[in-house]
Amino acid sequence: MKRNVLIIGAGGVAQVVAHKCAQANDRLGDLHIASRTLAKCEAVIASVQGKGAMKVPGVFAAHAVDAMDTGAVAALIRDTGAQIVINVGSSFVNMTVLEACIETGVAYLDTAIHEDPAKICETPPWYGNYEWQRRERCAQAGVTAILGVGFDPGVVNAYARLAADDHLDRVHSIDIVDINAGSHGRWFSTNFDPEINFREFTGTVYSWQNGVWQENAMFEVGQVFDLPVVGPQKAYLTGHDEVHSLSAAYPEADVRFWMGFGDHYINVFTVLKNLGLLSEKPVVTAEGLEVVPLKLVKAVLPDPASLAPDYVGKTCIGDIVRGVKDGAAAEVFIYNIADHKEAYEETGSQGISYTAGLPPVAAALLIADGTWDVGRMVNVEDLDPKPFLNLLNGMGLPTRIRDAAGDRALVF
Amino acid sequence: MKRNVLIIGAGGVAQVVAHKCAQANDRLGDLHIASRTLAKCEAVIASVQGKGAMKVPGVFAAHAVDAMDTGAVAALIRDTGAQIVINVGSSFVNMTVLEACIETGVAYLDTAIHEDPAKICETPPWYGNYEWQRRERCAQAGVTAILGVGFDPGVVNAYARLAADDHLDRVHSIDIVDINAGSHGRWFSTNFDPEINFREFTGTVYSWQNGVWQENAMFEVGQVFDLPVVGPQKAYLTGHDEVHSLSAAYPEADVRFWMGFGDHYINVFTVLKNLGLLSEKPVVTAEGLEVVPLKLVKAVLPDPASLAPDYVGKTCIGDIVRGVKDGAAAEVFIYNIADHKEAYEETGSQGISYTAGLPPVAAALLIADGTWDVGRMVNVEDLDPKPFLNLLNGMGLPTRIRDAAGDRALVF
Repeated sequence: MKRNVLIIGAGGVAQVVAHKCAQANDRLGDLHIASRTLAKCEAVIASVQGKGAMKVPGVFAAHAVDAMDTGAVAALIRDTGAQIVINVGSSFVNMTVLEACIETGVAYLDTAIHEDPAKICETPPWYGNYEWQRRERCAQAGVTAILGVGFDPGVVNAYARLAADDHLDRVHSIDIVDINAGSHGRWFSTNFDPEINFREFTGTVYSWQNGVWQENAMFEVGQVFDLPVVGPQKAYLTGHDEVHSLSAAYPEADVRFWMGFGDHYINVFTVLKNLGLLSEKPVVTAEGLEVVPLKLVKAVLPDPASLAPDYVGKTCIGDIVRGVKDGAAAEVFIYNIADHKEAYEETGSQGISYTAGLPPVAAALLIADGTWDVGRMVNVEDLDPKPFLNLLNGMGLPTRIRDAAGDRALVF
Repeated sequence: MKRNVLIIGAGGVAQVVAHKCAQANDRLGDLHIASRTLAKCEAVIASVQGKGAMKVPGVFAAHAVDAMDTGAVAALIRDTGAQIVINVGSSFVNMTVLEACIETGVAYLDTAIHEDPAKICETPPWYGNYEWQRRERCAQAGVTAILGVGFDPGVVNAYARLAADDHLDRVHSIDIVDINAGSHGRWFSTNFDPEINFREFTGTVYSWQNGVWQENAMFEVGQVFDLPVVGPQKAYLTGHDEVHSLSAAYPEADVRFWMGFGDHYINVFTVLKNLGLLSEKPVVTAEGLEVVPLKLVKAVLPDPASLAPDYVGKTCIGDIVRGVKDGAAAEVFIYNIADHKEAYEETGSQGISYTAGLPPVAAALLIADGTWDVGRMVNVEDLDPKPFLNLLNGMGLPTRIRDAAGDRALVF
């Protein structure tokens, strides 16, 4: 049993985490949120109070912290008495926050892989570069660290595990498909931090096929998927965190990640990339100023959090899992449909933040009640998916399945 | 009679100026080149020496100068004994260099309108904002200042004057068309300083029509022109310097400037502009660094000077002048065709730099021999075009005409 949550980060995802923690503060205890900028944390709490989201009267406090400073994070954990840290800050702070959790013996959750600001697309499996090197220390310290427990990675890992456990005897392939069929009404915007968004697409696209790492370029391989609710959608083979853990869990299966992109996004991305404006390496202007192009691009693009009020439409994210069942070829699509407007009305964030921010709160609840408090470092597919998906069903991200028997809700 | 030339600037255009001055140093005397960076000046002189371009043995010396500092430029003029200054530096230094010429009583030539780094597309006529405010002082000091004596503005102003003087009784319209049908082989590049290039297209497009300033947006008005050598080419109504002086000289005529653009250029421009990356106003990154987006874009794009070795194809720049001759409607197209590869072989610069850099040297020769040493500030259409065009015929930019009588060379 663990209580008291410290949220690291104060962006759109953190706002969803805050709302969802508040809605369950009877089970989670005191809530704290910390980021570099105190005012952003206070704005998140104001949004929570504005919606009357706290289930019972309780603590929700804002803190300023430099999350790159392990000592500062550890001190904050001790000061707040937090036993669960939900890290939804920049991907650059994962390891310093994890170290603070190991040092203080509290549970750690994140939603995206650690990144070094100076490197893009390191060698696969990505988790091997930073996270998994700390597996033993987590086990020794009895620290529960759940890696990548957003939607994708996260819920889609649970979907893969569920398909393998319950729906197929053998798994041949896991194709994760992420479609955002929503519209933000801006000329161009990324749906989350542009720096992280573009970094995902500038490096090598790794997929796991025929038991080896396959390398492609972004937008090199595309196909149309005909999906529930959102209809036919073009998606492209994309590098993504979950490929790097699912390929270890299911090495016999092909593991691919597909992300939907419109032609407009691809055009803007292509122009910026080909001009060198997505580079993380500094260039020097004629005036002698050293500038990282990607950081300037981030500065001129809309703040993704600002898109929420006008965002309409739906997302469809799920796993097409193919294999053998009772001796015959079989396929299931396990998925969720989320709605941008509903997400905004509930939490003040759009659907992309909603799908990413709700799952770590479900995971925190499973740590709080002991179900997932495993005392070691895991990826989501290492855990029993059913209590997690059941919680999500009730919290706003219901799971559905489409297979030979039709399309229906999945409840356990 | 004036002698000794000081070139301000050391880019691709300056390199052409240097080569062409060297080829005529028997008439121009000592040659000097100055820019912020001494090494760039030395590289230009090395190129001149490498081609053995000096017609007779003589001085060609490099100097470092801050051209924004009038006192420093005046001191350099005195030290070098230059009586003619050819300013092909950044458009931001025109007024400080002109002031130095007025102070020292020497002739001044430039090829583009003065710009304030902090402003874009000021009210028309543009020359009224800076240059023409100094007309009286030039006249009082007896200083010959020839504004905008590149190709466009410059040669095209002489073409307009020639059409009005010799080919039409009344002029109804002057349409200047600038087509670069060459190919530099890069994914994207501007042909001259990106900062100046993009600034031309981000503001209001002014044209002079029906006796008033007409305002349009860039790429709003386009048409296909079927031109000699380069064939049918799409060009767009564009703001440009010469419209702002020719409209004063020929107020009864419509004066428009058309520049050719491919779809790829327009797409890249549109993406950069719509994202805010062409702004001259600083933005602040998440890290607190203040950056002018346009200056970063300049830093990531190819140096236009680096395009020269691979540039192939031709430019076609000229004036379609319509009006009345002997009581009937008449039209002439007076134009030049330049070749990128030939320009490079002669001067180490590509055709765009060649067409811009050769005319001010012809003008300098006309100042040196007294023909154009008028002792006041003028635009090119204020001067007799024939000696100028005759010189250009011999120097590498021959004039042709296409009218009812056919297509032929124009020699006087």
